[in-house]
Amino acid sequence: MIYFDNSATTFPTERVRAVCSDTMADELSGNPGSLHKLGVAADTAYGKCISGTAALLGAKPSEIIFTSCATESANTAIRGFMSRNRRAGNTVISTRTEHKATLECLAYLEKNGFNVVYIPVLSDGKPDLKVLEDTLAAGDCALMCFTLVNNETGAVLPSDEILKLRNRVSPSTVYYLDAVQALGKIRMDLHKTGCDMCSFSGHKIHGLKGVGVLYVRDGIRIDPLILGGGQQRGMRSGTQSLVLARSFETALEEASEGIEAAFDDVSAINGYLRRELAARKAMILSPDDALPYVLNVSFEGFESETMLHCLEIYDIFVSTVSACSSKSKKVSYVLLESGVPQKIAANAVRISFSRYNTMHEAEEFIRCVDEIYDKFAVRR
Amino acid sequence: MIYFDNSATTFPTERVRAVCSDTMADELSGNPGSLHKLGVAADTAYGKCISGTAALLGAKPSEIIFTSCATESANTAIRGFMSRNRRAGNTVISTRTEHKATLECLAYLEKNGFNVVYIPVLSDGKPDLKVLEDTLAAGDCALMCFTLVNNETGAVLPSDEILKLRNRVSPSTVYYLDAVQALGKIRMDLHKTGCDMCSFSGHKIHGLKGVGVLYVRDGIRIDPLILGGGQQRGMRSGTQSLVLARSFETALEEASEGIEAAFDDVSAINGYLRRELAARKAMILSPDDALPYVLNVSFEGFESETMLHCLEIYDIFVSTVSACSSKSKKVSYVLLESGVPQKIAANAVRISFSRYNTMHEAEEFIRCVDEIYDKFAVRR
Repeated sequence: MIYFDNSATTFPTERVRAVCSDTMADELSGNPGSLHKLGVAADTAYGKCISGTAALLGAKPSEIIFTSCATESANTAIRGFMSRNRRAGNTVISTRTEHKATLECLAYLEKNGFNVVYIPVLSDGKPDLKVLEDTLAAGDCALMCFTLVNNETGAVLPSDEILKLRNRVSPSTVYYLDAVQALGKIRMDLHKTGCDMCSFSGHKIHGLKGVGVLYVRDGIRIDPLILGGGQQRGMRSGTQSLVLARSFETALEEASEGIEAAFDDVSAINGYLRRELAARKAMILSPDDALPYVLNVSFEGFESETMLHCLEIYDIFVSTVSACSSKSKKVSYVLLESGVPQKIAANAVRISFSRYNTMHEAEEFIRCVDEIYDKFAVRR
Repeated sequence: MIYFDNSATTFPTERVRAVCSDTMADELSGNPGSLHKLGVAADTAYGKCISGTAALLGAKPSEIIFTSCATESANTAIRGFMSRNRRAGNTVISTRTEHKATLECLAYLEKNGFNVVYIPVLSDGKPDLKVLEDTLAAGDCALMCFTLVNNETGAVLPSDEILKLRNRVSPSTVYYLDAVQALGKIRMDLHKTGCDMCSFSGHKIHGLKGVGVLYVRDGIRIDPLILGGGQQRGMRSGTQSLVLARSFETALEEASEGIEAAFDDVSAINGYLRRELAARKAMILSPDDALPYVLNVSFEGFESETMLHCLEIYDIFVSTVSACSSKSKKVSYVLLESGVPQKIAANAVRISFSRYNTMHEAEEFIRCVDEIYDKFAVRR
């Protein structure tokens, strides 16, 4: 099996599974809210998990909230900031190439009277900075929401430039970043990154499904999404799950070890595939400077889903669009918004890697693509 | 160790842990949203888990939503119903003895212009049905929110009577039920119960923390709380976690086996403790007809927290108030609302059982209480 669908989800590593199994079995299953020593032990362990996670992200423990997924993180950040800061402005800036978690929150805000400005995205997947500057300069911008690494193309946001622009033109605009696809692939140092809020997911970095993180910089105030017992400083009610939090911390720890070497390995795989595929009847849709972990390719003569199922015959797993949108069987809105023609986008396949993929798998992939063209392609 | 704090949280059983470990390790870690066979396998397994859970609850699969906790379930049901059904009425009925997850949602609704009527609670922990009838008769009641088993006293809601009242006086009022403390203790048959929405938690029935269920009867429409990729029929976005869902299903399955025998065993333990404690300097605060799984007792001469820590010396774990509120170190609002005098409520301890507790533990508990009175009680 060759699993090239790591942007959709990853499989928990042995270490993650061991930590989860151990945590389930030991006496740390107390309620962190309980006053007795089982509660105190659970609370202490949870606190350590927050500190460890914060350190790995370059943040302070007080800035970390554990959520149930990156989607919850996005909802909490975007909707929570706008509902809490009514006087900060009525406009939110974003693009139409964001993940559905962001886009649906923006649609919700629009329905509730907020103004959302979608900055056009250029062919390299980056937002048009000139339009962004003008929009920021027009004032009233409470929040801007961008994605550090696009989940369908790997396009990398020029985050530093955007930050400089924001600081120069509209310093009060708060900066929300979806860093789900960047985590565990590039070293994360949130204080250096300079964003004000940031979302992460556990299951994209070989942790469990059911846990995410929301970073909210000290000083930024948001309304919680889930109300109740006031856990996590009132920012996220609901009994904390040490198993899930630890699965996240462990996965992040593992991903941080040798992160640069892993990046180089995946770059080599990506480079090889770009060369080999370009030499065949495939068009590389990912920008040249995309993160190497995602490679979007359009195969001439094969609709996205056809190629996906052809590859599946060889136990090779890729995806068409984002897993969250795949059931609707539509052409990728990310590609269309980036100016890729409909016909080419309709043949797009997303190949996405993890540090555990190998060059041998990439070679095998190419061999299978050749076979697929030989066997299935309609002669022209 | 004697763990008598099962209403705060429970420890995962061996079977639950085994199912989680197995699910983490096998190939079902694909994204249920993916089109390839790893996705299809995960989606099929998830669907089976929903069907299994629905069957155990006496509901249809289309009525089950997996959430991250009962708190999320409550937020989704209460806020989601009121935001979706603006024309159903502006009034919500509840009591002041609900869990914080409900109370905070009600406070949110009040802040947003809704009218919340809190029905007084009588000394038996039950809402005053005469006041309820009058309130329902006054009209404008979109929703009523009650708890099937109170988490601090075990008081059981006269749900059938309430349902009859609703059907007679205000049939359009939707009935939301918090059944967190009832699940796994009394057989749940939601269609018979007749409520329209119902919340459950995994970690109260020896499942994992981080998973809950929301039942929404077919035909009831609510707005989702978490927006995004449209998973779970659009009602709860975020990649589904098979590990968590299975931990819930397995725990519920286990809890359902011999549920009546377990109830009888716990009734015997409860009866023994009631008799022995009443014969000492303790006052039973749980109503006579409370669920036997919760026993609230006031110890003369010992403030709640003092008794908690005295028992802790003997490795006996109980709680003062709900774990969600315990950090605030206040006297139980549930007891005060039920008419328990401040002085007696300030000495209240909640003892809560699981099917795995034994009569021997109860006897040991009484022995320790005697020792505590001998050693620590101030002579009067």
